[in-house]
Amino acid sequence: MTRRGLLFVLSSPSGAGKSTLSKMLLAADGAISLSVSATTRPPRPGEVDGKDYHFVSVERFEAMVDNGDFFEWAHVFGNRYGTPRLAVEALLAQGSDVLFDIDWQGAQQLHHAAGADVARVFILPPSIAELEHRLRARGTDSDAVITARMERARAEISHWSEYDYVLINADVEACFAQVRTVLNAERLRLARQLGMTEFTRGLMG
Amino acid sequence: MTRRGLLFVLSSPSGAGKSTLSKMLLAADGAISLSVSATTRPPRPGEVDGKDYHFVSVERFEAMVDNGDFFEWAHVFGNRYGTPRLAVEALLAQGSDVLFDIDWQGAQQLHHAAGADVARVFILPPSIAELEHRLRARGTDSDAVITARMERARAEISHWSEYDYVLINADVEACFAQVRTVLNAERLRLARQLGMTEFTRGLMG
Repeated sequence: MTRRGLLFVLSSPSGAGKSTLSKMLLAADGAISLSVSATTRPPRPGEVDGKDYHFVSVERFEAMVDNGDFFEWAHVFGNRYGTPRLAVEALLAQGSDVLFDIDWQGAQQLHHAAGADVARVFILPPSIAELEHRLRARGTDSDAVITARMERARAEISHWSEYDYVLINADVEACFAQVRTVLNAERLRLARQLGMTEFTRGLMG
Repeated sequence: MTRRGLLFVLSSPSGAGKSTLSKMLLAADGAISLSVSATTRPPRPGEVDGKDYHFVSVERFEAMVDNGDFFEWAHVFGNRYGTPRLAVEALLAQGSDVLFDIDWQGAQQLHHAAGADVARVFILPPSIAELEHRLRARGTDSDAVITARMERARAEISHWSEYDYVLINADVEACFAQVRTVLNAERLRLARQLGMTEFTRGLMG
C-alpha cells in the first residue's frame, strides 16, 4: 500500500492572493502538482493553454460533462470550469499531492466527491477595504469592473465558513508560510500515514 | 469573542519520546501550557509536585472524582490519573493552548468531552525492535521490567488509529519540527480563527 495523496484546495476572492500563493507553493514544494482546470472562457493575456487552463469550446466541454470526464464542474459568471478527472487520478497515482486553485463551488463539489482526502484552505484579505484598495492599485480595471469584482469577492467570501482552514493574507510571505504549515500538517494525518513505513504497514495487519 | 483555545494531546508508548517532545514544545512555544495531571502513584526521583504531577492520596483523588473535578480520569496499571478541570479551563480562559501528555484512555475521554477543540497526535517509534533497544539502552531496568514495559507499549500502540495525526520518531529534532507544524496548522483551523481579526468577527455577523 502506498501513501494516499492529498487534494489541497486554495480558494479566495480575486485579489486576496490565491494565485500568487499557488505559484509560490508549486515553485517551493516538489511533492504537489497543480490540477489544471478546463474552461470555456477565452485566455487572458499571458495565459498558456495546458498550463494555466485547458481552453476548450462549449461543445467540447459539454461532451466532457456527458462523458463523466470531470471530477467537478460549475458555471461561473457565464463560463464553465471543470476539473478533469483522469489528470487528477494520474497525479495521485504517481504519489503526488494535487493543488486546486478553485472557487467555493469547486471546493464544495470536490469535498463531496473526495471527502477526507480534501483539505480546504480559504484566504481572506485583511479587510474588504484593503481588497478594494488592491484591486484599484492594479490600475488595469475601470470602476465598473472593480464594482463587479467586489460583488464577486463578497459572494466568494460568504462561503468562507465551509473551509477547514482560514488564513488572513496581510503579508504574503507570512501567509505563504502558513499555507506550507497547513499542507505539511495535513500530510501527517493518520489516513495519509498508513502506508508510510514498514512499521505502520505492519500495524495495519 | 476571543480565540478558542486548543487542547493538544501527545500520546506514545513509553520510550517513543513523548515526554522529551512535550518538554521541547513547552520550552519553544510560549502560547501553550501543560495540563498537569493528578495521580495517586508515588513521585519518581526528580519529579516535582505541581509541575510534573499533582501527587494526591487515593482518598483525595476519589473525593475529586465525586466532586466532578476531573475533565477525564482513568485507572492505569493500578494507579489513578486525572485531568483537573478548573486548571484547564483557567488556561483556556487566558487564551492559552493546553498540552496533554496522556495515554490513549485520557485521549479518548478528552475527545469525547471536548470534541473539535482537541487535536490528537500519536508518536510511534520507528519499530518495535527500536523501542525495545531504547528501553534497554537506558540501563535502568531489569529484564522483567522491560518485558512489562514492552507489553504496555504494545497495548498503547494498539490505539494509534484513534488519533488525528501520527508521527514517527526516528529523529527527535525532525519529529519535534513535525509536532510544531501540526500545532501551528491546528491553530489556523476555521473554528479557531473566528475571533482573530475585526474582519473575521464582522463576517460572523
